[in-house]
Formats: sequence, structure tokens, C-alpha cells
Amino acid sequence: MRSDNPNSNLDDKPSNSVTQWFIEGYDGSALMIKVRETLFEKRSLQYIQIFDTESFGKMLVLDGKIQLTEKDEGMYHEMLVHVPLFSVDNPDKILVIGGGDGGSVREVLKHEPTEVIMVEIDREVVDACQMYIGVDEGALKDERVTVLFEDGIEFVRTSKEKFDVIIVDGTDPNPVSKNLIAEEFYRYCSKIANLFATQSQSPFVQDQYFVELIQNARRGFNFCSVYINYVPTYPLGLWSYLLASNNELNPSYAEIKRRWEERKIETKHYNPELHMASFALPEWLKKRLEKI
Amino acid sequence: MRSDNPNSNLDDKPSNSVTQWFIEGYDGSALMIKVRETLFEKRSLQYIQIFDTESFGKMLVLDGKIQLTEKDEGMYHEMLVHVPLFSVDNPDKILVIGGGDGGSVREVLKHEPTEVIMVEIDREVVDACQMYIGVDEGALKDERVTVLFEDGIEFVRTSKEKFDVIIVDGTDPNPVSKNLIAEEFYRYCSKIANLFATQSQSPFVQDQYFVELIQNARRGFNFCSVYINYVPTYPLGLWSYLLASNNELNPSYAEIKRRWEERKIETKHYNPELHMASFALPEWLKKRLEKI
Repeated sequence: MRSDNPNSNLDDKPSNSVTQWFIEGYDGSALMIKVRETLFEKRSLQYIQIFDTESFGKMLVLDGKIQLTEKDEGMYHEMLVHVPLFSVDNPDKILVIGGGDGGSVREVLKHEPTEVIMVEIDREVVDACQMYIGVDEGALKDERVTVLFEDGIEFVRTSKEKFDVIIVDGTDPNPVSKNLIAEEFYRYCSKIANLFATQSQSPFVQDQYFVELIQNARRGFNFCSVYINYVPTYPLGLWSYLLASNNELNPSYAEIKRRWEERKIETKHYNPELHMASFALPEWLKKRLEKI
Repeated sequence: MRSDNPNSNLDDKPSNSVTQWFIEGYDGSALMIKVRETLFEKRSLQYIQIFDTESFGKMLVLDGKIQLTEKDEGMYHEMLVHVPLFSVDNPDKILVIGGGDGGSVREVLKHEPTEVIMVEIDREVVDACQMYIGVDEGALKDERVTVLFEDGIEFVRTSKEKFDVIIVDGTDPNPVSKNLIAEEFYRYCSKIANLFATQSQSPFVQDQYFVELIQNARRGFNFCSVYINYVPTYPLGLWSYLLASNNELNPSYAEIKRRWEERKIETKHYNPELHMASFALPEWLKKRLEKI
């Protein structure tokens, strides 16, 4: 990869050179990731950076926030996708909003849907990930998948199509993605799909975004549940997701397990026990949700 | 606190001084915590540091590793203590090994035992925590509690007493605490208690310690289960615990819930749902445990 990379000027770097660290700051804390090489860096709609790291493989950063590393992206994507998709029989037509790296579509395809539409606003993210990371494992070129480069909120506002499930794989709210936590967005989504899942930020260090997202989602969908997961390179390791639906949805462990066995999906992180467990929230988070 | 502190020479520090960060390194990554002031620093059996941090309250560091912050110590201590103690009826006589900050004994006392013995090897840790942090909330001075300053492995080797539960609240294995993951230690413990819980490191970034601990515990106890929890300031946020027993122990959710309601214990993090959920392990960890 190195010799093909026009952004790299490190080929002759001596071995005793200064160590490079990527640093993502939170409130009074920060995560440092040791970087071997910057593979790609470009201002697009967002500021895109791709690094080769010492212990986490390739890493995608948008506007200074880690979006994925090869080492733990499975933990994030599997819980985002498999929790909603194992919650229903026959998830056949799926809409993915965001998710330019292709990891979510890769997981969706394991359920053998007929059709997947991915709507990503920033074509440069898709192109850079295809060139330097490739976590989609060919998913974005699969014949069942259509990739559209447009604004997700515009797509759901004007869509005449219906979907079995909508999955939102967005960034931290920024000028490009902030529409994806707006009330109208959830209202539009609830008109074209009965089941919806989104990442919903860290409830531990991003309380403001978390609260806004939950409040607005509750205005769009009749039923909203938060589930949590461990993603090491996301802020302080705890991540949350929202599962929302128009009709009440409380699948039993037996149902989830049956679908898991029928679909014969291989995972690194997700399993039916973790699916059920992820809805058990600590006291502080239960109380936080009661107050929203 | 500042004026009482002989270690502080920062009283006249101007407001535009350099920001101080505490950094704990893992494999190719590190956590940074913004520090307001160093409250205490001393070489004892371990290198003890206590900081006042910007977002996490007071923070105890031993040999360069974060042991607790006021903000998230409850997440760690509650799951270490309440999972074993809610697993049995009448946990009456409890042995705590390590845990010099007193947070574990504080949680144990909520179950209203008759007697608690805490065995901590490093008196300086207890004294420093009492003076600068106080997370024990008076527990170490409770009349039901006896604090002994001696080596935990020697205590369990020579003890003539029996305990209902042993709880090990140790540091990362270091020259002082490495005996607490040795095979003999678990064998001694299994002779004086039927139920045992210990913190068991991060299975994500401390594989070597985790594996050694599990292997040795399995030689000492007939039944061993790993459970997991989220502790933001521990390495990359995922932490594990081992619950071990001489007799098979699979309490139902109904039993845990009944004890929870009977004992009327207030928690910030633990609840019966999280108790059950913490035994659901991700695929990669289930597979890791099968290979140990």
C-alpha cells in the first residue's frame, strides 16, 4: 500500500524517528492511538484521515473522531446490525444511512436480504475506505446493494419505497450529520419502515447528544429501547444504540436464538445471549432515561 | 484539602500554567486524564499517587496504573461485590483481600454481614486513601470490620477461619500482588470459602494475565465463570471478573431479584438485570475461554 500512496512521504523514515500518536479528546480525558503512518488525509464534506496504527490495524477518522479501527469495528457493526435484523423474521429490504466504510452493509448481507440501499452523503469517505481499508469485504459491490451519494434526511423525506429495517450508521453529530438526530428525520423514517436502529453515542461522556437523540426518536417512533455495547476505541469504551419501532417488539431469547440458528451467521462479537444482555442497563443509565 | 497537603507546592500556581495529564499506556494505545493537582506521591511497597482530576474527581494510581477514580469506582466495586453477595442467601462473614481504598468493604457492608475482615498488604495505600479520597465512606472504621495489614496469600494459607465469601480486589499483577493470581492462592481460598470473586483484568488488552488467572483459578475451584463490566478508566473500558465456587451455582434471575428486594441496597450501577447480563460474553471471549 505504501508505494501506491501519494500522501505518504515516510518511505525513508529512519527507525529512531519520533513516535506519532493520534489523540481524541473527550471531557477531561483523551484516548491516544499509536500511529505507524498516515495513509490518507483530505478535507471533503468532513475532514477524512486514514491511519495505519500499531495495534488496531487501519483506522478511519472523520472530523477528528475515530469512526473505526480494523481491530474493533466488528464489535460496533455487529451490534448495530444484528440486533435489529435478528429481531424480525425475513428482513428482506434494508436501508442503511451513513456507514460509508461498508461494515454495516457487510453485516446486513449475512442475513441474505433481497435488496440493500445505502445512502451516504460523503462519496470521498466511501472511496477512501475502499482504497485504504476495505472492511466492507466487497459488500458495496454486491449486486443486491445500491449505493447512493445523497443526504440521508432528503432520501427518507422523499422516498416512495418501504423498508423492513432502517439502520443509521452516522458519525457524532457534526454539520454534515446533525440532521440524522433531528425529530423530522425520525418521523420520516417511521413512515417508511416499522423497525429502525441507530448508533446513539456514549451515554457516559456525550450526554447532550444522547439526550437529544432519544428525545427526538421518541417523537418519531412509538417504541424506543436503548441497548449498550463495548467498543474499545469509542469514547471511554461504552457505546449505545437505539432500537425503535412503530409496533411493540419484545422478541424472546428463544426467537432470537431460533433465527440465529436458521440463518447460520458467523460473528466475532454478537451472539443471541449478548443480544438479550445488551438491553440490561446500569442503574445510572436507567435513571437517566427515565428523566429524559 | 490543599492547605493540609505537605506534598503540594502548587498553591501559588498561576492560572495560565501548563496543563498536566496523567497517561496510562496499554499496547499501542493510552488513556490520558487531565490532572488539576497531585495530592500525594510516595514510594511504598508500590508507587502510590493520588491526583485531583478535572472530570473524574480524585484518582488513585498504583505503580502507574489507575486503581480508581471517584467518578467510576462505583461501577467497578459494585459489580465486584454484589454479584457474589447476591448469589447466596445470608452472606454473613466476608473476607476482602486487597481493596485498600475501602470501596469494596463499603459495598459489602450494605449486605449487613456480621463480620468483615479486610487483608491489605500496603498500609500506606489505606492511609493515603483515608486522608485524600475517602471512598470507603467510613466503612473501614465500622465496628464489624477488621483491617489487617499483611500478605493475603499468607492469610489464606494459615487461616483457621471459614468465610461465606472471599472477594479479591487486587491490582494488576505486580511484585506485590502477583501471588494473588497463583494456583496455590486459589487452592487455599477454596479450602476456607465456598464462594470466591476476583477482578480478572481486561480480556481485551491483558490477555496474558487474564489467561494465567483463569487457568490457576480453575485448578483451585470446581466451578469458574467469567463476567464482564464497563469501567471507563480501566484499560479501554472493558473489565472482567471471575466468580468461582466449590459447588455449582446458577442462581436464577428470580432469586437474585428476590434478594435484591429483600436487602434494599442502593446502587449507582449494579442491578439484578445487569447481574444476569454480565455473564453473557461476546463470541471472541467465549472462544478465548474455551481454548484456555
